[in-house]
Amino acid sequence: MGRATDRRSVLRIDLDAADPTRARVHRPDSVSVEEPLEIRVGPGGPGRRRPLAVTMRTPGDDLDLAIGFLLTEGLIRSAADVHTAQLCAGADTPNTYNVVDVVLAPGVPEPATDAARNFYTTSSCGVCGKASIDAVRTRSQFAVADDPLSIPAGMLAELPDRLRAAQRNFDRTGGLHAAGLFTGGGDLVVLREDVGRHNAVDKVVGWAVRERRLPLAGHLLLVSGRASFELTQKAWMAGVPLLAAVSAPSTLAADLAEEAGMTLVGFLRGRTMNVYAGAHRIDH
Amino acid sequence: MGRATDRRSVLRIDLDAADPTRARVHRPDSVSVEEPLEIRVGPGGPGRRRPLAVTMRTPGDDLDLAIGFLLTEGLIRSAADVHTAQLCAGADTPNTYNVVDVVLAPGVPEPATDAARNFYTTSSCGVCGKASIDAVRTRSQFAVADDPLSIPAGMLAELPDRLRAAQRNFDRTGGLHAAGLFTGGGDLVVLREDVGRHNAVDKVVGWAVRERRLPLAGHLLLVSGRASFELTQKAWMAGVPLLAAVSAPSTLAADLAEEAGMTLVGFLRGRTMNVYAGAHRIDH
Repeated sequence: MGRATDRRSVLRIDLDAADPTRARVHRPDSVSVEEPLEIRVGPGGPGRRRPLAVTMRTPGDDLDLAIGFLLTEGLIRSAADVHTAQLCAGADTPNTYNVVDVVLAPGVPEPATDAARNFYTTSSCGVCGKASIDAVRTRSQFAVADDPLSIPAGMLAELPDRLRAAQRNFDRTGGLHAAGLFTGGGDLVVLREDVGRHNAVDKVVGWAVRERRLPLAGHLLLVSGRASFELTQKAWMAGVPLLAAVSAPSTLAADLAEEAGMTLVGFLRGRTMNVYAGAHRIDH
Repeated sequence: MGRATDRRSVLRIDLDAADPTRARVHRPDSVSVEEPLEIRVGPGGPGRRRPLAVTMRTPGDDLDLAIGFLLTEGLIRSAADVHTAQLCAGADTPNTYNVVDVVLAPGVPEPATDAARNFYTTSSCGVCGKASIDAVRTRSQFAVADDPLSIPAGMLAELPDRLRAAQRNFDRTGGLHAAGLFTGGGDLVVLREDVGRHNAVDKVVGWAVRERRLPLAGHLLLVSGRASFELTQKAWMAGVPLLAAVSAPSTLAADLAEEAGMTLVGFLRGRTMNVYAGAHRIDH
C-alpha cells in the first residue's frame, strides 16, 4: 500500500560490455508499481456508494487522485461537495487498499451514469472533437481566458529541469509520468508522479481541491509527456491558464486550449518551445 | 477522415536563435490528430448495436482498432465472430466518421456490460493486481508459455531502429506512439501509430485478426513507449509470446508476463535491455 516502486528480478543484457561477465547479469531492479484503483461514489449511508470508474495507477495520494478525478470530470465543484473520502480494502481483497469510497455532501447530484449506454459518460464521449470540446465548456466552472498570467519564455524553459530535479527525489524507476504545478514566478508548488499521466494530473488537482486552492488562476501545469485532450480538459476544469508539455500536443488539445482561452505549450525542450494557443502569455 | 496529422498555427520560440528575427516565428506545423471513436456492438438488425466504449484515437485503421479492441478485451475470439464492421458517421455529426458499428455473428454473446456497476467491465476492473491477472488468464484463449520463439539479443537490439525508420515514412509530428509486429527473424510485419499507445496495439491486433493470423505465435510486438498491464494483456490475448518496450514496464506488466509465460523486455535502447520475464527466449 502506497509504495510507488517495488523490486523485481531482472536480467540486464549489455551487448557491448567490456567485461563478458557483465554482459548478462541477473539483479533486482526497481519497477514502478501499477495497481487498479476503484473509485466509488454516492450519498451517505451503508451500501449507497457505487463503483464509478477503475483506473490503473501507482499507489499513493489515492484520495487526491479520486477527488481530482471527480473534479476534472465535473462531478464535484469543490472540496465542499465531498463529505468524506476514505481509502479502503476491496471486499474480495482484504490485503489491498485499492478502493476509494467517496461520500458526497448532501444535495450533490450522483454521477449521471448513462445506463442505456452502459459506460460512464466522460467528456470524451462526444463522437466528434467539437462535441467533446462543447462538453468540457458546458462543464467547466472557471473562465481562464482572462487570466492575466504572463511568463517569460526564459523562465518557462527552465521548468522541465526543475521538474526533473524534483522527480529525482522520488523516482528510481524511469517509468513514471510527472505533473508539476508551478506559480507564475516559476516556483514548484506540488509534484505528483504516476504510471498514468492523467492520474499524475488528477493527483495534483485533487491536492489543490483539498487545499481549497481552486481555481488555480495564475498557475501553470507542466507535464513530462504529451498533451492530450484529456490533460487539457483537466487543466481547464481546475482553472489553470497555461499547460506546458515536454512532448507533442494533439490537434484536439490545441483546439480545446484555443476554445478555452488557455495557453498551450508543447515540445518544451532545452531553449525552444512551440506555442499552440494563447501565445500572448509568453513574454520574450 | 483518416488523416493522421493536421496543420495548426504555431509560435516557435528559440531563445538561442542567432538571428533575432528567427527567435519568435509564427508558422504552420503538423500536429497529430486526436478524435473520439465510439465502438458500437451488438447483433444484426436495425438499432440493435449499443455503444460499448469510446477511445480517443488518431483516425485511420479504425475497423482494425475496433476489432482489435474487441479481441484483446475478450469479446470476440476470431474474425469469424464478426459479421460486419463498418465505419459510419455519428447521428449528430454527419461530417465525421467517428463510429464503428460492429454486427456480431449469430451466436456470439453480447458484451457483458455490468449495468449495476455502470461502467464497461474491463479486465482491469479487479480491485487488486492479482484479480486483474486472473481476469486475463480466464479470458485468454491462447497459451503462449510453450511458444518456442528464440531471438538473439543482438537482433532484438536492432528492432527499435527499424521501427523508427518505418515510422519516418508516416509520422511528421513526433506525437505518435508506435506498435510494430515483427517475425522471429526480425522482419517488420505491420506497423501502426496512434496518439494512444493502447490504440496502436489494438490496430496491430485488429489487422492480424482480419488477416486470420491469430494466434501470433513466433512473433514479437515492439512498442515505442512503456509497457503497462494493459499492453501486456493485449499481447497475451493475441498470442504474442514476446513484448518489448523502449521504456519502462510496470510491476503489473512484469507479473502478468511471468504468469502468462511471456517474455517481457524493457528499456530496449542502444545495445542494452532489461528482461523482466521469460529470459529463456533471449539468446546471447
